[in-house]
Amino acid sequence: MSREQRAKIDAMLRQPRPEGPRSVEEIRAGFRALMAGMIVPAGIRTRTVSLGDRPAVLVEPPGTPKTGTILYFHGGSFVFGSPDTAMSLTGNLVVKTGFRAFSLDYRLAPEHPFPAAIEDAVSAYRALLDSGEAPSAIAFAGDSAGGGLTVTTCLAARDAGLPMPAAIVAFSPGLDLTRTGESMDTKAGIDPLFTREDLERTGALYLAGQDPRQPLLSPAVFADPTGFPPMLLQAGTNEILLDDATRLAARARAAGVDVVLDIIAEVPHVFQSFAGVLDEADEALDRAALFLAQRIHSQDTKN
Amino acid sequence: MSREQRAKIDAMLRQPRPEGPRSVEEIRAGFRALMAGMIVPAGIRTRTVSLGDRPAVLVEPPGTPKTGTILYFHGGSFVFGSPDTAMSLTGNLVVKTGFRAFSLDYRLAPEHPFPAAIEDAVSAYRALLDSGEAPSAIAFAGDSAGGGLTVTTCLAARDAGLPMPAAIVAFSPGLDLTRTGESMDTKAGIDPLFTREDLERTGALYLAGQDPRQPLLSPAVFADPTGFPPMLLQAGTNEILLDDATRLAARARAAGVDVVLDIIAEVPHVFQSFAGVLDEADEALDRAALFLAQRIHSQDTKN
Repeated sequence: MSREQRAKIDAMLRQPRPEGPRSVEEIRAGFRALMAGMIVPAGIRTRTVSLGDRPAVLVEPPGTPKTGTILYFHGGSFVFGSPDTAMSLTGNLVVKTGFRAFSLDYRLAPEHPFPAAIEDAVSAYRALLDSGEAPSAIAFAGDSAGGGLTVTTCLAARDAGLPMPAAIVAFSPGLDLTRTGESMDTKAGIDPLFTREDLERTGALYLAGQDPRQPLLSPAVFADPTGFPPMLLQAGTNEILLDDATRLAARARAAGVDVVLDIIAEVPHVFQSFAGVLDEADEALDRAALFLAQRIHSQDTKN
Repeated sequence: MSREQRAKIDAMLRQPRPEGPRSVEEIRAGFRALMAGMIVPAGIRTRTVSLGDRPAVLVEPPGTPKTGTILYFHGGSFVFGSPDTAMSLTGNLVVKTGFRAFSLDYRLAPEHPFPAAIEDAVSAYRALLDSGEAPSAIAFAGDSAGGGLTVTTCLAARDAGLPMPAAIVAFSPGLDLTRTGESMDTKAGIDPLFTREDLERTGALYLAGQDPRQPLLSPAVFADPTGFPPMLLQAGTNEILLDDATRLAARARAAGVDVVLDIIAEVPHVFQSFAGVLDEADEALDRAALFLAQRIHSQDTKN
């Protein structure tokens, strides 16, 4: 019974957490431990490679991959997380689509604040293009801060004169460092994972004094998504970041972009991580996989 | 090239139309002629049956149908259209899902104004339930005015004490007889099919003097969708009814309903009718089919 599954996940995430501010290392270790509990699909093959200026984990499906590439950006508020902590999400997309993915190990704050992560993402995308992959065969996907990177990397790529990828898939994207979404307040207390204070603490490490009122930091408020590829945004109603997704969807629709805004009730931030435990997670990933399959085309088929 | 396909469809729909108001019979004949050009998928089997108080066309897929039923409501502003004019849409859903559909021949205005169509739809749903079909195995689907019926039939069924169906799929639903959506103005002239005057003329036939400010006539503005099943709303950005879908989606999300709002740029009202000609149409129907397959469950599997 799926509403029961949703309630169980919520209760689990509401377990008491350590009091007081934690160090960056404690936050990173805590997230590693949490995400180590997620189910990574069997049969995928992974190896660390170099992509642009950074390491990346190449994730391949069982059997022969289909032609096409997912460039994946993990979550973690630009401060924590790694390709490994997002392997359930990346692995599921790879298994469900048959495409390979590169999950980028982009630089993190506070050691490397804005715009380091975006620079690394553009560099990885450029490396894929330079390797001969067609933009029509590449999609950006990511969760949370990495969902934000799917959007800001398109902005930065466009500014750099690069072609747009074929699609964007973003799970609970963080798209507003000004934190002005209504859900920041309306979902306070309902969100079992984040408080405004949590986000402002890690956000300050990424900002490092920069003004958040700019497209690359708050695209849900300031970006012009004209010319963007079709995008699928998924989020839960139990998250303070919900309106990051709804506001970007509205902006993108107004700019003539195809947008699927896929909102699931009573599930938390990046609920897709609970694939194998929560029916909505698997179903949402199946919808994302169909969307990717519809948009990613190898050069020798259709454009 | 899909943006070219979108432009071709738009140009085709902008062909000059007869000047001045047309009679109801002329409108009905014109719509029959337009929809006769749509591609109905091969292999479906159709026969006219009785469902509740009205005739319906039972549409079955090639081979053995899967357990589950789509109750389909055709479009036509509650004044024109029939199961036949929507057969491309219904047939594609049946072929793509493997479920059977009943496409209801509900009563039309001006002969039978509000709430005749809703009464017929509830009667058909009740007949399906009485036949032993589980609500978890039934989805409502429809286009335009019929998309509106997917929503208002849920409202009326809830008021009648009936259980909710498993899902709602609505293509360019009409959900507001008050005509207060922003897109009524922002998309005027961009919409190649409808003007405000068109909608107000047919709307007046359906209203027959009733106040449109009520949930069963303007659910995007007045309905409480609490307890509704998951819904998928698809619309194009080139339609004055666009904000009927976006406003209902926002209301439903706020009420704790799972909502997929799937908006395609630069396509017209009920663009899915162009399946076989417009890539976006086939792809949108594939996404709708996956959504239905995820939500319709026969009793002997999972609920």
